[in-house]
Amino acid sequence: MRKSPKINLYVALIHYPVVNKNGQIIASAVTNLDLHDIARAAKTYGVKKYYIITPIDDQKKLVKKITAHWTHGVGAEFNPLRREALELITVRSSLEEVLDEMGQRELKKIRLVVTSAKKNQNSLSYSDFRDMLNIKNDNQYILLFGTAWGLAKEVIEKADYVLEPISGNTPYNHLSVRSAAAIIMDRLLGNHGLSS
Amino acid sequence: MRKSPKINLYVALIHYPVVNKNGQIIASAVTNLDLHDIARAAKTYGVKKYYIITPIDDQKKLVKKITAHWTHGVGAEFNPLRREALELITVRSSLEEVLDEMGQRELKKIRLVVTSAKKNQNSLSYSDFRDMLNIKNDNQYILLFGTAWGLAKEVIEKADYVLEPISGNTPYNHLSVRSAAAIIMDRLLGNHGLSS
Repeated sequence: MRKSPKINLYVALIHYPVVNKNGQIIASAVTNLDLHDIARAAKTYGVKKYYIITPIDDQKKLVKKITAHWTHGVGAEFNPLRREALELITVRSSLEEVLDEMGQRELKKIRLVVTSAKKNQNSLSYSDFRDMLNIKNDNQYILLFGTAWGLAKEVIEKADYVLEPISGNTPYNHLSVRSAAAIIMDRLLGNHGLSS
Repeated sequence: MRKSPKINLYVALIHYPVVNKNGQIIASAVTNLDLHDIARAAKTYGVKKYYIITPIDDQKKLVKKITAHWTHGVGAEFNPLRREALELITVRSSLEEVLDEMGQRELKKIRLVVTSAKKNQNSLSYSDFRDMLNIKNDNQYILLFGTAWGLAKEVIEKADYVLEPISGNTPYNHLSVRSAAAIIMDRLLGNHGLSS
């Protein structure tokens, strides 16, 4: 019934380099529900792939173990719908590895978009990004989400665009990364009858 | 800087009566991140209270233990922002208990709105509900989210309104309740520059 358009969007959840409460660069631990929730949202909104980025071998193994359970193991039989979502997950050691891989596979230019809870002078608005995803152009976009207290400065500086922060209707802006990712995908790709 | 309007909206997460995979009525277990994620989103969007509904004593104790850790315990000192969100949580045994309590406290009429992943003939649209929340009227709204495979039929039949399902841009509609709650609050209350 509904069209499933080809969306030129990838998402990635970064576990390194991110910052802790004190602004120090750390590698955060993988959270099971970050895999499930963001994969299910990515599947709902037609995102191409969902990259989990961590340089730590044990953590990479953990991600593979969880996704294998739901894509090939007992979980796949128990809940095939969960399988469809978790199949979008690919684990990689670094953003550079992802960009190299995408560069080899894609003929289109790759544009890096970062999310941040902080305001930025040249923020990209949701409506502009929505338009960019809707028009036929030569770009592929990869949207980065940070774990812990957010993406390290070096990642933000590398980006082509910084997406504007989510604004609720209070000064409080401390959503979980799972909620933020869901809301952002909905603002960019959802059929919510509020815009085109 | 930004206004924090008074929103006549409460949210509640129902653990009983909900249905399992086979449509049977069950009481689901409380999930830690359901408390955190939905409380943080509720705080972001100015929701009045976040009710956790479960009739099981051990589960009620668990909810109180988790929230006490973050509102009065070590967690409150470590992360005061988390405290502000989790302070919205109130645990109750049943929806009836919540409605009785609200009825005694509120002079306004209480309207029950349920969420469902299934289409309904008389669904309330996001834009209509958004308008209802924005205008000054004599209503208080309580928005119910179901855990497990969703709210039991008896709860849906009791509702004044059934909110339309979230539509992404694919036929896949299996978001986590945490993602669905975040998206719905954003559609109803967010400043996303796509509508008034």
